[in-house]
Amino acid sequence: MALSETSLIERYFRGGGAQRADVTLGIGDDAAILAVPPGHELVACTDTLVTGVHFPHDSPAASIGHRALAVNLSDMAAMGARPAWALLALTLPQADEAWLAEFAAGFAALAREHRVALVGGDTTRGPLCISVQVLGLVPQGTALRRGGAQAGDVLCVSGTPGDAAAGLALEQRRLEAPAAARDYLRERFLLPTPRVALGERLRDFASACIDVSDGLLGDAGKLAQASGLACELEFEQLPLSDALRATLGMDDARRLALSGGDDYELCFAVPASRFAQLQAQLPAQRWGYARIGVLVPGGGARVTCRGSVMEFSHSGYQHFR
Amino acid sequence: MALSETSLIERYFRGGGAQRADVTLGIGDDAAILAVPPGHELVACTDTLVTGVHFPHDSPAASIGHRALAVNLSDMAAMGARPAWALLALTLPQADEAWLAEFAAGFAALAREHRVALVGGDTTRGPLCISVQVLGLVPQGTALRRGGAQAGDVLCVSGTPGDAAAGLALEQRRLEAPAAARDYLRERFLLPTPRVALGERLRDFASACIDVSDGLLGDAGKLAQASGLACELEFEQLPLSDALRATLGMDDARRLALSGGDDYELCFAVPASRFAQLQAQLPAQRWGYARIGVLVPGGGARVTCRGSVMEFSHSGYQHFR
Repeated sequence: MALSETSLIERYFRGGGAQRADVTLGIGDDAAILAVPPGHELVACTDTLVTGVHFPHDSPAASIGHRALAVNLSDMAAMGARPAWALLALTLPQADEAWLAEFAAGFAALAREHRVALVGGDTTRGPLCISVQVLGLVPQGTALRRGGAQAGDVLCVSGTPGDAAAGLALEQRRLEAPAAARDYLRERFLLPTPRVALGERLRDFASACIDVSDGLLGDAGKLAQASGLACELEFEQLPLSDALRATLGMDDARRLALSGGDDYELCFAVPASRFAQLQAQLPAQRWGYARIGVLVPGGGARVTCRGSVMEFSHSGYQHFR
Repeated sequence: MALSETSLIERYFRGGGAQRADVTLGIGDDAAILAVPPGHELVACTDTLVTGVHFPHDSPAASIGHRALAVNLSDMAAMGARPAWALLALTLPQADEAWLAEFAAGFAALAREHRVALVGGDTTRGPLCISVQVLGLVPQGTALRRGGAQAGDVLCVSGTPGDAAAGLALEQRRLEAPAAARDYLRERFLLPTPRVALGERLRDFASACIDVSDGLLGDAGKLAQASGLACELEFEQLPLSDALRATLGMDDARRLALSGGDDYELCFAVPASRFAQLQAQLPAQRWGYARIGVLVPGGGARVTCRGSVMEFSHSGYQHFR
């Protein structure tokens, strides 16, 4: 069915996210007008999903809508910011009503969950490509950064990395998994959970934080590098889901936890002196994070197993190599 | 040459725009941190350019970089906002160094001209597609909108619409032009001029404003519709460049001024009682705008010529029809 650009935005996206009093003017004009509360800084990021690169061509539209927002919310979480507003630039080969309705529903459900208002958008014709921009807020001077960790800081990760990479491999039929594990792992890829609440709470504890999207080892290395340090991850401390362990076995599961992409978890450093307090105030079990290593002087990212350094050939996903 | 995503951003885009004291943290972390001055609202927009849709496949990279930013600056201008920060989501089939350097130079030159800092970015592999988000600032409560015009308000347009559409036709070899006109018209397409300074000044005068990007008649109609009114454009008042007139003749030049896209001019309404003051403070000759019609009760967009209503079949560019 033919649809004009105006009606595409109006029909599928207006009012799709949260309603917020700080949106002075939302979708429908040349730009949105937004009220930033006093004493806060603005945090801004953008991330793009391209079909065949970031998701298989046959991915469910609701998953694409969810992921396009989730990858940006994960960046907000890594800054300790509370996401507030989103803009959506959607390039589509054609205006397929069923696809659009599902995409918008996936996007809107996650937006409402995090009280994010969709305030602007742009739809154009072309190969499927979705850029989302998210704007968030932090009390002035409190945002988390990649740099800032000190030697001796404890390194942690949220969730169970590697699950999403296994889920993608299942989607692409490159992997088989026991029936009990399959749906869980696929969902970790299709509907990742940005750790927004954890990120906000970590403003009180973390010395540095990064979004894990390109593989834990590589991203932990970026945090260490930005802090002028090296990181040492302990292979046997890597947290694994039962599903991943059942699918790959302990050893390969840990390898995938280090290298797999699309986790959208948080990797963060905490001063050793503050770690007990972190555990007391944010119990690891309830908040879903684990201690995986330590920051040390030097450079690079190493993995140790019973005191020996392990060798890996792949340390993260790069789009251009 | 192979380039990692990190080095792509660092190498070509970091420090490419203006340096601004209100950028607490720019490119290189999970998100940017920005300081919004007290008493201001944030204005946010996004616009995407897709190869083969918004520019010919063989367009110069510097022009693509310029236009990707210009189309967003034009949205800022239409809101009366002063652009401050930009984010760039760049999807590229491959990392071509010469192309990237030219693209970045085109983007950066326009960014510096308008004191816009590039604070974030994302590069991915895929069909060429560029989404830019621009964030700007307006003193609280002063932003211009499409709605707000009253019956009797004077309708104006900046620049000489139609030039860019002729420039694109020349680029695509669908049109021939006298040598003296050719370069001028091509440049109006390749390097449009967002009317940022005019937009800011119009906060004191305009009752409504819209960015003219999809054809003047259609966009004037959107302003009228958002204001609950109709607009009447006078065919013989449409401002034309010498180059367009020399290329198409008076009549066809005016038709193209009404229907052609990619102008990135401002169409704005001014209360009749304020029009003399506008002309006194912002002389039309120097600021480059012309009175083209009037807002009237009713709906739709009409063009009159010596008192008679003209008929047109095309009133704006729609991506999906």
